[in-house]
Amino acid sequence: MADIFERLIKNYGPIGQHRERAHGYFAFPKLEGEIGSRMKFRGKEMVVWSLNNYLGLANHPEIRKADADGAAQYGLALPMGARMMSGNSNFHEQLERELAEFEEKEDAILMNFGYQGIMSAIDAVCGRHDVIVYDAESHACIIDGLRLHPGHRYVFKHNDMEDFDKQMERATALIQKQGSGGILVITEGVFGMAGDQGKLKEICDLKSKYEFRLLVDDAHGFGTLGKRGAGAGELQECQDGIDLYFSTFAKSMASIGAFLAGPRVIIDYIRYNIRSQIFAKSLPMPIVTGNLKRLEMLRTMPELREKLWDNALKLQKGLKERGFDIGSTNTMVTPIYMKGGVEEATAMVMDLRENYGIFCSIVVYPVIPKGHIIYRLIPTAAHNDEDIQRTLTAFSETKARLDAGAYKVEAIPDMADAR
Amino acid sequence: MADIFERLIKNYGPIGQHRERAHGYFAFPKLEGEIGSRMKFRGKEMVVWSLNNYLGLANHPEIRKADADGAAQYGLALPMGARMMSGNSNFHEQLERELAEFEEKEDAILMNFGYQGIMSAIDAVCGRHDVIVYDAESHACIIDGLRLHPGHRYVFKHNDMEDFDKQMERATALIQKQGSGGILVITEGVFGMAGDQGKLKEICDLKSKYEFRLLVDDAHGFGTLGKRGAGAGELQECQDGIDLYFSTFAKSMASIGAFLAGPRVIIDYIRYNIRSQIFAKSLPMPIVTGNLKRLEMLRTMPELREKLWDNALKLQKGLKERGFDIGSTNTMVTPIYMKGGVEEATAMVMDLRENYGIFCSIVVYPVIPKGHIIYRLIPTAAHNDEDIQRTLTAFSETKARLDAGAYKVEAIPDMADAR
Repeated sequence: MADIFERLIKNYGPIGQHRERAHGYFAFPKLEGEIGSRMKFRGKEMVVWSLNNYLGLANHPEIRKADADGAAQYGLALPMGARMMSGNSNFHEQLERELAEFEEKEDAILMNFGYQGIMSAIDAVCGRHDVIVYDAESHACIIDGLRLHPGHRYVFKHNDMEDFDKQMERATALIQKQGSGGILVITEGVFGMAGDQGKLKEICDLKSKYEFRLLVDDAHGFGTLGKRGAGAGELQECQDGIDLYFSTFAKSMASIGAFLAGPRVIIDYIRYNIRSQIFAKSLPMPIVTGNLKRLEMLRTMPELREKLWDNALKLQKGLKERGFDIGSTNTMVTPIYMKGGVEEATAMVMDLRENYGIFCSIVVYPVIPKGHIIYRLIPTAAHNDEDIQRTLTAFSETKARLDAGAYKVEAIPDMADAR
Repeated sequence: MADIFERLIKNYGPIGQHRERAHGYFAFPKLEGEIGSRMKFRGKEMVVWSLNNYLGLANHPEIRKADADGAAQYGLALPMGARMMSGNSNFHEQLERELAEFEEKEDAILMNFGYQGIMSAIDAVCGRHDVIVYDAESHACIIDGLRLHPGHRYVFKHNDMEDFDKQMERATALIQKQGSGGILVITEGVFGMAGDQGKLKEICDLKSKYEFRLLVDDAHGFGTLGKRGAGAGELQECQDGIDLYFSTFAKSMASIGAFLAGPRVIIDYIRYNIRSQIFAKSLPMPIVTGNLKRLEMLRTMPELREKLWDNALKLQKGLKERGFDIGSTNTMVTPIYMKGGVEEATAMVMDLRENYGIFCSIVVYPVIPKGHIIYRLIPTAAHNDEDIQRTLTAFSETKARLDAGAYKVEAIPDMADAR
C-alpha cells in the first residue's frame, strides 16, 4: 500500500525537478510594469519576447479605458452562475454574434476559459463510436479533450499529409467496420512553438476523398493572419471547410475566455450540452465588454496587424541574415534553433537577461531531445526597431559565445533567492 | 459512414430538446441590473434566489471599488501567459499565501478557473496505479477529472458511510493485488443541489482504518461554514484530515478562479505539473487583487456570514412551518421537494415569476426521476425579511394550486419571443 503523496515527491517532473534553483528565474518569473516591449524583471528593464500580445492591445489606451470603464460600471462579479442558469446577458450574445460574423460562421458560443472550453467542446461533439484524427503537436488542451473521448483516436505526424492520409484510411475503415460513427479531424491554425501553420487547405481538400468534420484551434492565427485578421482559414482561403473554428482570447485579444464558431444547429447543440459551460460560471461582464472593444479594434485597425508583421519580418530577416536557424515558421512566431546542453542554455539565458536585457522563452531537454535548445520570440505590434536591433546584437554575441564553448564552464548560480 | 453533425441534431439532449420554447425563459434567462436580491427579468422586478452570492459581496460598495480600482490600475490583460512562463506576480503569490493561512494549510496554488483547476489537479496527483474513491453526487468538474484518470475508480453512494466502507475495502484490496498505488478519496464540503454536507468528519476518522488521501471540493462551504468561514472542514472540526482543500471563487467570493491548499511539497509538485495551469493563461491581475479584497472582507466581517445564516434559517423555518419538504439540508442551500409533472412545474415557475416576481432555479425530469420537482433557493446576506415573506407567500399559494391540479390544464406558451 503506497501513499500517493510520498510517490509524488519522489519525482517532481521535467521542470519541477529543477524548481529549487529555477523558481522565480527560469520558472514563474515576474515581469513587472505595464505590458509592452519593455518590462522589468528583478528590477532590470528587459526587451520582452514572451507575451502573445500580438496586436499590442493589452496596454492600448482605448483598451485600458474600456477595461476600466467596464469594471467601474459592472464590477467583476456580474453575472453570477452559468450562462444556462443565471449568467446570460445581451453583451454575451452580442459578442457571440460579432465573432460569428467576423469568422463567417452562422453562430458562435462564448467559453468562460479556452482550455476547458475546447476540452468540453470535443467531449460534447464526439460520441463513443466517433473517431478523432489529430495532429501530433496539438496543444495540451486538445490532448486533454481527446483523453475524455471514450472512442478511438488516431494521431498523424505533425503536418504530414501522407500520414494524415494513412490515418484517415484507418479511421474510415474502423467506422465502416463499426457500422456507425463519424470522423472529427482536429488541428491548429498556427502551432505556437514552431510557428508553422496547420495544413488546413490540404486537409479541407481531402473532404472530397473522406467524410469528416474539421475542428481548428486557431489561438495564434486569430487576429494575426488573413487580410482581415480572421485567421489561418482566411489566409489559406479555406474558412468554409473549417466546420468548427476555435480561438482563445488570451493571445491577440489580450484577455481571457474563448469562442467556438460554426453552423447554428451545431453551436446550439453545444450550447445545451457542453459540460464546462453548463456547470461553471459565465465570463464576467467587463471581460465581455472588453472583448467587444478588442474585437472592434482588431477588425477596424489593420495598422496593428501591419505593425506586427513589419516587426516580425524585420526580426526574422535579421536572424536569417545573421545565420540563425528559425526553422519552418510561416507566421510571426519566431523560434531559434541551437545546439547545446541544458547547462549551457541556462548560462546563455542568464547572459541574455543580465547583460543584454533580453527576456524570452527557452525550451530544453527533457521537453525536446538532449543537446538542442529552442528559443521562442513573439514579436508584437508593441515592439520597435530598437528592440529588434538590440535583440539581434544580443543573439549574435551570445551565440558566438555558445559556439566557442564559453558557457560550458560556467556554474549555474543558485536562484533560490529570487523566490 | 455517419456524419457527426447529422447525429448531433437528431437529439439535442435533456435540456436542449426543449430549447425552442425554453430558450431565454427557462434556459439562458437574462437577469438584469446590479446583483442583489432584486433584479430585472424581462423588464419585471424579481426576488432572485438563483445566485451563489452568499455573503452579498458581488455588489458590496467596497468590492465594487476594489474591482474598479484594480481594472483602472492594471487593465484586464495583465499578466499575459501562464504563471510558469510569464504570468506570475507578487499579488498572485500573496493571495496564495493568504488562502493557505486562512485554510490552515502550508501552501496554496491559485487556479485560473475552478472547473479546469480541479480536473487537472486530480490528473496531476493520480497515477495509473492509484485508485479514486468518490461520492456519487460529485460535481461535473470532479467527474470530468475522474474521466481523465486511467486507473480504477470506485463510487460510493452519496454520503453513505456503509457503502464508503465497502468501496474502501475494494480499493484497498485492488491496490494490495496490484502491489502499488494509493487511494485518493474525493467528496464535497457541501453538495450544491441538496445542501447537505459531505461526511468529512466520518471519512477523516476512517484514516485510522484505511490509508488514503482526501480531496474536498468546498465550493459552497468556503466563506459560509465554520466559525471563521473557513468551510466545512472547520465546521466539522476535521480540517487537518483534509489533505487537499479546494474551492472556487465563484460562490462566496463572487469572482472567478479557484485555489487548492495543502502540504507545501505537494502544492509545489502540483504547481509544476498541473496541465490546465502550466498550459493556460494566469488569472488577470484585477481578479487577483479583487479576490484579495474579498478574502479580507470574508475574514474580517463575520456580520456578512451572520446575515446569510439569519436569512437562511428564517427562510427554512418559514418553509418548514408551511409544511414544505426541504429535505436534508444542513447548510444555507434550500431545496424544496414537490411532486408534479414537467408541464405542471413549467406552469408553476411561470406563475411564480409572472404573478409573484419570484425567480429561482428548478430541476425536473429527466435530470431527476419523473413526477418530481425540485426548487432550489440560495439565500444570501443581500436578502431581507420582505424578500423572504414574499417568497413564503408565493410558494404557499402556488403550491396550493399545484396540489389542486390547477397547473395541469394550462398550456405552456411559446417563449421563443424571449430570445
